[in-house]
Amino acid sequence: MGPIITLLTDFGRIDPYAGILHGVIACIAPEARIIDLSHDIPPQDVAAASFCLACAVPCFPDGTIHVAVVDPGVGTARRAVALAVEGGFLVGPDNGLFTGVLARTRILAGVALDDPARWRTPQPSPVFHGRDIFAPAAAHLAHGIPLDGLGTPLDPAGLVRLDLPRCVRQGDRIQGCVQHVDQFGNLVT
Amino acid sequence: MGPIITLLTDFGRIDPYAGILHGVIACIAPEARIIDLSHDIPPQDVAAASFCLACAVPCFPDGTIHVAVVDPGVGTARRAVALAVEGGFLVGPDNGLFTGVLARTRILAGVALDDPARWRTPQPSPVFHGRDIFAPAAAHLAHGIPLDGLGTPLDPAGLVRLDLPRCVRQGDRIQGCVQHVDQFGNLVT
Amino acid sequence: MGPIITLLTDFGRIDPYAGILHGVIACIAPEARIIDLSHDIPPQDVAAASFCLACAVPCFPDGTIHVAVVDPGVGTARRAVALAVEGGFLVGPDNGLFTGVLARTRILAGVALDDPARWRTPQPSPVFHGRDIFAPAAAHLAHGIPLDGLGTPLDPAGLVRLDLPRCVRQGDRIQGCVQHVDQFGNLVT
Repeated sequence: MGPIITLLTDFGRIDPYAGILHGVIACIAPEARIIDLSHDIPPQDVAAASFCLACAVPCFPDGTIHVAVVDPGVGTARRAVALAVEGGFLVGPDNGLFTGVLARTRILAGVALDDPARWRTPQPSPVFHGRDIFAPAAAHLAHGIPLDGLGTPLDPAGLVRLDLPRCVRQGDRIQGCVQHVDQFGNLVT
Repeated sequence: MGPIITLLTDFGRIDPYAGILHGVIACIAPEARIIDLSHDIPPQDVAAASFCLACAVPCFPDGTIHVAVVDPGVGTARRAVALAVEGGFLVGPDNGLFTGVLARTRILAGVALDDPARWRTPQPSPVFHGRDIFAPAAAHLAHGIPLDGLGTPLDPAGLVRLDLPRCVRQGDRIQGCVQHVDQFGNLVT
Repeated sequence: MGPIITLLTDFGRIDPYAGILHGVIACIAPEARIIDLSHDIPPQDVAAASFCLACAVPCFPDGTIHVAVVDPGVGTARRAVALAVEGGFLVGPDNGLFTGVLARTRILAGVALDDPARWRTPQPSPVFHGRDIFAPAAAHLAHGIPLDGLGTPLDPAGLVRLDLPRCVRQGDRIQGCVQHVDQFGNLVT
């Protein structure tokens, strides 16, 4: 049984984009086991994705590779990154997606996914880095390529983090900011 | 290839709760194969879940472990149970979820899932027994723990069953109660 | 690791019909790996399904078996077919579903799925050929039955193809027909 790769995206379920990530991974790392966390994150809602990922990561075995693609900046200069953390790996755009996980977990190392030899194609689609950059990176990790074989080392201090408003108590009032409303109507601050 | 575990819930697909069940199971029984029946049962609709489960169970191989979590009473005194039936196992709350399956299948044995040593944590979340009690129970079964290693034996006659109105013919009229409306608009009585 | 079977349907995610296909396949070919492309194709929208399948097929390993069930004619005289193409197999109703894939891929051979011995039951449900005919055919292929063991050879020239309007340029105007609108609002002509 190979390592687990989880997928968290805002691709929705109507289009075959999520299934395509499975196919791309199966081409590179047929032994990897792929688990869908969600493909229904509200479109481009990086804060909701950060929260969902932080909930899920602690429930997975050590060594799991988590791919998250909620990526309003796809095709711009935002970096594509892979991080080794305690418990596993994180792969996705450097846009704050990993803020929630990184609040509880230490980064061991990180790279920018800037080596075209590890992409699906040297000319990746400007709108589908999930297929052409992130899924291949995760699959290479699952298949045994070490993290530093995927691109240039980066300084973890330079990663983008969301600046989420904290809950504030003022006398007998508590004021917070809703990050996410779940299926059962629970509000997460 | 390990045994199959199926999942049927009302967790929806936006939140990572369904994916979390996969992670919890993979931690305990990495050899189990997990198949999602549905995570979009209308919230807390035990009758719809009972119907869907009864449709699906006969299509799975012998020994399959079916986990169903549609659980309006989570955190109350309702029991958590696991049942051995002809063809496999059923795991979930004792709230009538298994009424449809049990109308066609004989119960061989049952236990209440009351042994904290088999839970994910001795202090399960009052709102997420799927993660902390049901998924671990199914994973232990898949991994070879016998049913009576999960808790205290129960009397099958005491299980909660839904009292669904039957169809009644009166002269040239048939009166029934719609249990479920499927994707194509078919009504199930 | 057995061959991959992909599933593309309009069954939706509320009902357990998609999960049932997984169960039927696991009964016949437990070694097959099943990947869901989409179960949320707009109901009976054969053109959208054709487009989605054509996007996805090139991203899967050689030998993948693609099952597509968007089947407004289920229960009528439309044929059930399996095709060997470059790169893998296609299984589904002969209603134009494969138009997009076949525009780019050569057919090597095809059969009508008319051998009841390969169905799930000699009396298939008139409304659920996915469960009773298509999933079993794909599972038999995955399990090693050759294509011509599934039914009567057919002439590829006789397959139904969608006649999709092409984009037309007239002076400085381009006129096309929208085949599909994706999750991000992109229009596909």
